[in-house]
Amino acid sequence: MLRRRFVVVGHAAPTDGDFSLNDLPGSGGRVDLLARAVTAAFLISHGMRRDTVVYLVHLGAPDPPKAVRFEGEKLRYLNPDERSTAALAKHALMKRLPAKGWVDSTPGVSAARMGLDGVLDEAGGAAVYLKEGGTPLREATLPGEGAVTFILSDHMNLTEEEEKAVLARAPLVVGLGPLSLHTEHCITLVHNGLDLWGR
Amino acid sequence: MLRRRFVVVGHAAPTDGDFSLNDLPGSGGRVDLLARAVTAAFLISHGMRRDTVVYLVHLGAPDPPKAVRFEGEKLRYLNPDERSTAALAKHALMKRLPAKGWVDSTPGVSAARMGLDGVLDEAGGAAVYLKEGGTPLREATLPGEGAVTFILSDHMNLTEEEEKAVLARAPLVVGLGPLSLHTEHCITLVHNGLDLWGR
Repeated sequence: MLRRRFVVVGHAAPTDGDFSLNDLPGSGGRVDLLARAVTAAFLISHGMRRDTVVYLVHLGAPDPPKAVRFEGEKLRYLNPDERSTAALAKHALMKRLPAKGWVDSTPGVSAARMGLDGVLDEAGGAAVYLKEGGTPLREATLPGEGAVTFILSDHMNLTEEEEKAVLARAPLVVGLGPLSLHTEHCITLVHNGLDLWGR
Repeated sequence: MLRRRFVVVGHAAPTDGDFSLNDLPGSGGRVDLLARAVTAAFLISHGMRRDTVVYLVHLGAPDPPKAVRFEGEKLRYLNPDERSTAALAKHALMKRLPAKGWVDSTPGVSAARMGLDGVLDEAGGAAVYLKEGGTPLREATLPGEGAVTFILSDHMNLTEEEEKAVLARAPLVVGLGPLSLHTEHCITLVHNGLDLWGR
């Protein structure tokens, strides 16, 4: 089975832990969206997708860029609600981070000073850029094995520079339907497509 | 295009507005899950699915059953995060409800003293029971036009009695893949399936 990685760019997502769990859309710079992306990537009924890794790229104030990594293999304390998931990211972002390398937070969650380019290097695998108008997932020529990294943006499109970094990985460009959808819904659709078609 | 209705049974969902928006999984009786079901049903990027209606069936303490209805045609103030969506349901549940009939809350949101059976009568249309192991959505013989009502449970299965009420509507039984999935993810998959296949 393909090992699935999801990279989500959070353009306004905070780069310290100083945001309120009571106002994730506002003070949290749309951490609500990132939290739903994480739960969509990992949670199934009564279980977790252990073969999945999620990288959140936080590009907001005060100290960008930072990345928060969730590794299914080791992940604990992940619940379905936004607030507790955002608390895991908040906890990771409160760590003192060196210039290089990951710092562990709660089990399976870590943070690093890393932007989109670094995260894409780290995630590796075949790159798939999820973009409206791309090849339908079902028809895309995914590799037969190994890792696949799906790249998504938050509620804003990737900037020109970000898109350049993605296109430099010669990605497959895949679309998920006729409508423009929320990030977390795209992750649900990718997983289900791969589940259904035995990938 | 098929008019889409989603009925979600919340077995522990509160039947007054006295739950904390800071603890939706606990004191809210899994209102977090119901809130995500609502946003999955309505929200697309930069827009709302106006042809959709959602019925939440609240069966928890202190005064069951109650139903909260969200009508896409009239719906306002729906944001993507759980907390603000739960606040819409909370507001509706704080209304004084007569024995029969809907009471309006915020635009597009209303509440009534009504259980699953009443909601299924009200929703009408062709019934589709989403259940593991059912016919794949793509192969299901959905009606060509009119309304379709998809019936889902929360994190618990339907009780025997609830299932009997559903089966009395002679539903199509439809499954969405090889894994058991969260309620809100099922709604995302149903919408996308119907979008893709032009229904």
